[in-house]
Amino acid sequence: MEKEKRTEIGSIGEFGLIDTIRETVTLYHPGTLKGIGDDAAVLGPTELVRVVTTDMLLEGVHFDLSYTPLTHLGFKAVAVNVSDVAAMNAIPTQVTVSLALSNRFSVEAVAAIYEGINLAAAHYKVDVVGGDTTASRTGLVISVTAIGEAKKGEICYRSGAKINDIICVTGDLGGAFMGLQVLEREKQVYLADPKMQPRLDAYSYVTGRQLRPDARMDIVHELRDLHVVPTSMIDVSDGLASELFHICQASDVGVAIYEDKLPIDKQTYDTAFEFNMDPITSVLNGGEDYELLFTIDQKDFPSLEKHPDIHFIGHVTAADQGKLLITKSQTAVPLKAQGWKHF
Amino acid sequence: MEKEKRTEIGSIGEFGLIDTIRETVTLYHPGTLKGIGDDAAVLGPTELVRVVTTDMLLEGVHFDLSYTPLTHLGFKAVAVNVSDVAAMNAIPTQVTVSLALSNRFSVEAVAAIYEGINLAAAHYKVDVVGGDTTASRTGLVISVTAIGEAKKGEICYRSGAKINDIICVTGDLGGAFMGLQVLEREKQVYLADPKMQPRLDAYSYVTGRQLRPDARMDIVHELRDLHVVPTSMIDVSDGLASELFHICQASDVGVAIYEDKLPIDKQTYDTAFEFNMDPITSVLNGGEDYELLFTIDQKDFPSLEKHPDIHFIGHVTAADQGKLLITKSQTAVPLKAQGWKHF
Repeated sequence: MEKEKRTEIGSIGEFGLIDTIRETVTLYHPGTLKGIGDDAAVLGPTELVRVVTTDMLLEGVHFDLSYTPLTHLGFKAVAVNVSDVAAMNAIPTQVTVSLALSNRFSVEAVAAIYEGINLAAAHYKVDVVGGDTTASRTGLVISVTAIGEAKKGEICYRSGAKINDIICVTGDLGGAFMGLQVLEREKQVYLADPKMQPRLDAYSYVTGRQLRPDARMDIVHELRDLHVVPTSMIDVSDGLASELFHICQASDVGVAIYEDKLPIDKQTYDTAFEFNMDPITSVLNGGEDYELLFTIDQKDFPSLEKHPDIHFIGHVTAADQGKLLITKSQTAVPLKAQGWKHF
Repeated sequence: MEKEKRTEIGSIGEFGLIDTIRETVTLYHPGTLKGIGDDAAVLGPTELVRVVTTDMLLEGVHFDLSYTPLTHLGFKAVAVNVSDVAAMNAIPTQVTVSLALSNRFSVEAVAAIYEGINLAAAHYKVDVVGGDTTASRTGLVISVTAIGEAKKGEICYRSGAKINDIICVTGDLGGAFMGLQVLEREKQVYLADPKMQPRLDAYSYVTGRQLRPDARMDIVHELRDLHVVPTSMIDVSDGLASELFHICQASDVGVAIYEDKLPIDKQTYDTAFEFNMDPITSVLNGGEDYELLFTIDQKDFPSLEKHPDIHFIGHVTAADQGKLLITKSQTAVPLKAQGWKHF
């Protein structure tokens, strides 16, 4: 096997590295007056409101490079921020990317991360306008800030849900969590016996959900085409139950959701079963699906009713009704929000 | 001595921590429609252009907590980003702050960091509008993104310097670098014998320059009052020589600067002397002073001539004239840019 080329970052220096990165970047928005290469990026004036969000991913906490390809990681770092822009019902326009790299990482490794960043930039039509590249004593840190635009009346907060609104969720849930379980199991098998090859073929959907999530910008564009503005919206990064709690708290409402309406992919279901887990637990408390959870006024239901990828999982109630899961046997049990605990 | 109170972050959780932080934050700009507490912050429309910049500080690379008070660190993390906004000749309006914390850090430590962040926010009148708080396996990471505003014609790029422009620099240079030398020396003394108390009283100016730099927003406001728009501008984060190289490259010009015009504080000079260093080296290649380096058209010279804190250190030449330092003995020597090397 040919040995992979390895160029030390020290041999080209920080400014050399920035020049290398800059050459790979494409700009899509005429409103980006200046991208990488000055003290700050410059964005032209717009009549739209702008949204700003930021998320930091750390090696050993948010990702494990023993099973995460660097290109997927670069894509994911952008996608999770675009997902937050989508959750405001806004269109992403620019991102900044800061990387901290230990000396384990070569120029080629940075190029692989940027390949993913640039793929995501092309996919979501966002301009990489700046960032920071620095050394790290230990491992990789990626911090992304995303900026987006929307008309003021289009912005969806967590706080707008009203009693009797219909609760909607896109795609399916729990897959990213089950994908993580599979990846962690195969890693342990490999560590115990490096001759064992990971068996991942049967789990490609759930591992893909974990390693290369896609922000649901398609839904944001479709909602615009259908002239539907959700009354509240949030993305599912910490788990459905946790996100419902955020909407309830911000909107001062309760919710009732129905177990038999919750969307789950067959592979997620089967994998949960194999791991002796209740599939509903992965749906309610698994994180990182990056689907959209939103509430709509009942008048908008006919516009979305036939959408193949929007699921109507329950309705908004008064705050004193609590947060309830109606099981398949028609029993109402209180929802528990576990979410992700990194601390 | 009373034992300091220590609350584990795990005991209040990530959301509890975010709530604690949110309560300490003040908003100054009516244009901030939504700050912390949703998927993204929301900024109202403006006729101005917006600038965006980001900088990440890592423990062990950019700061050493054995001599850096957490409150100063929080202040500095905001100030270095505001300095990049200042370098565009823009007014900072919002920042996002992401923190990654290992379990060494308590809720009280986060409060101390935010005390500094909030002091800087008040000092520069910027709104802390969001961020991310997460666990770290090793040490503290602070990633700040700053947004600012200016009229389109006010924005200063690195690329606008013209032949015969006058080169200006604010304040004095080299202090932050000498401060770092003192702090590192006293740390080694302390490590060798913990009974030795650090002797820092005589070095308060230079250590202050290192630990708690101030972005020169005062200069940006004064330039506006005087109706002077620099032809190019950059902040001195990597060292004067390195920043001059950036302007030369972006503007396709050369420079000639005069050794006897370079501003240096007496304490910086004396400390360099004590360390057997050439004071001019600290001025040219010491970083982190966060002063402003800019070029002006000669017609603007009378407006700034009497300014007590702006120094005229040379002039812009044709690119083929090179980048020259004219020594006190009237010898022209090529400038060398060393800058900071973290890699």
